[in-house]
Amino acid sequence: MKLYGYFRSSASFRVRIALNLKGLAFEQESVQLPSGQQLSPEFRALNPQALVPVLDDGGALLTQSLAIIEYLDETHPQPPLLPAEPLARARVRSLALLTACDIHPLNNLKVLKYLSGTLKLDEARRNAWYRHWIAEGLSAMEKRLANEAGTGEFSHGAQPTLADCCLVPQIFNAKRYGCDLASYPVVMGVFERCMALDVFQKAAPLNQPDAEN
Amino acid sequence: MKLYGYFRSSASFRVRIALNLKGLAFEQESVQLPSGQQLSPEFRALNPQALVPVLDDGGALLTQSLAIIEYLDETHPQPPLLPAEPLARARVRSLALLTACDIHPLNNLKVLKYLSGTLKLDEARRNAWYRHWIAEGLSAMEKRLANEAGTGEFSHGAQPTLADCCLVPQIFNAKRYGCDLASYPVVMGVFERCMALDVFQKAAPLNQPDAEN
Repeated sequence: MKLYGYFRSSASFRVRIALNLKGLAFEQESVQLPSGQQLSPEFRALNPQALVPVLDDGGALLTQSLAIIEYLDETHPQPPLLPAEPLARARVRSLALLTACDIHPLNNLKVLKYLSGTLKLDEARRNAWYRHWIAEGLSAMEKRLANEAGTGEFSHGAQPTLADCCLVPQIFNAKRYGCDLASYPVVMGVFERCMALDVFQKAAPLNQPDAEN
Repeated sequence: MKLYGYFRSSASFRVRIALNLKGLAFEQESVQLPSGQQLSPEFRALNPQALVPVLDDGGALLTQSLAIIEYLDETHPQPPLLPAEPLARARVRSLALLTACDIHPLNNLKVLKYLSGTLKLDEARRNAWYRHWIAEGLSAMEKRLANEAGTGEFSHGAQPTLADCCLVPQIFNAKRYGCDLASYPVVMGVFERCMALDVFQKAAPLNQPDAEN
């Protein structure tokens, strides 16, 4: 398998975690987002959305990180990234989607470029935007993880799931933008337990071949 | 089952379509988004994210429209809303996520309120924002549906899937904001074939009990 991604891309990071949790070997091809390589005709031929990640599995091209991770879970079931029972599966998916639909899309590169380029917002207002959506999303995540019976050492139970594949990259991003995370102790406990595992460490941005140190 | 939603909420509309496709009876409880009912302590007790929809299935509370639809598909398998084969499932999920992660989150009520309230953008700039993300997302959707072998009468094959549950509400929204949809003939063909079906019509905003006519 070959993963087209970028070391700092949260969505690529999610898929790297899933591949590592499954113990699957993969090549990486770096797509240089800062210089706009994802907008090239060559890359758009792989993904008309001009977004990373793209997973090439024997010539089949897969896009959208959550769809890729569900595919990996269906084709390589062990260890499972979703629990077996439907309500538990729905819980894990809803936690993953809280991050993937309600936090990350508002703060990705193309949105921040629109804020600075088209709307001419200064850095202070861009940072306020960023932190607003992080705070809103993580406050809800904290309440859910603190109050729902399904929470364990990880977002759900005693093993990492799809929910953790999404949460960990979001916390990396929040830290990079200087967000105050002290109000989310349960979230941060889950994050720390994930990052104590080699498979998460190996997936981290600065441990990728294309990382700028 | 009881669905907490709002007639104009795209995410509620997705779940109404799925429930209708499955032939499941459900009660509706309207959450008045314009007056902020979703922010009340009572509603936050159901969903700390203060978002609709919430599905109550025998006392179990489910959030996030895509997680709810996957749950319905797992617990009521006929007719399936995802194909059987993993690559085809990944395709349907990636089309659904294109809408759910890359178009809708940028244009929902809370974001439009931030643009007008905090950023003090006038109506012209808010509409430009709205149409920018619609055009970017639907252009990619059009390329995918036009070029990928999986496309049939519907987004995938000859039966409606999760991808159509997401696409149709997004087109309703785009029309409501006056977006020009002439550049997306393949997308609009799928939309028209969906809307020719009673189950989609019955789910439409103006056919809900809480619709303002």
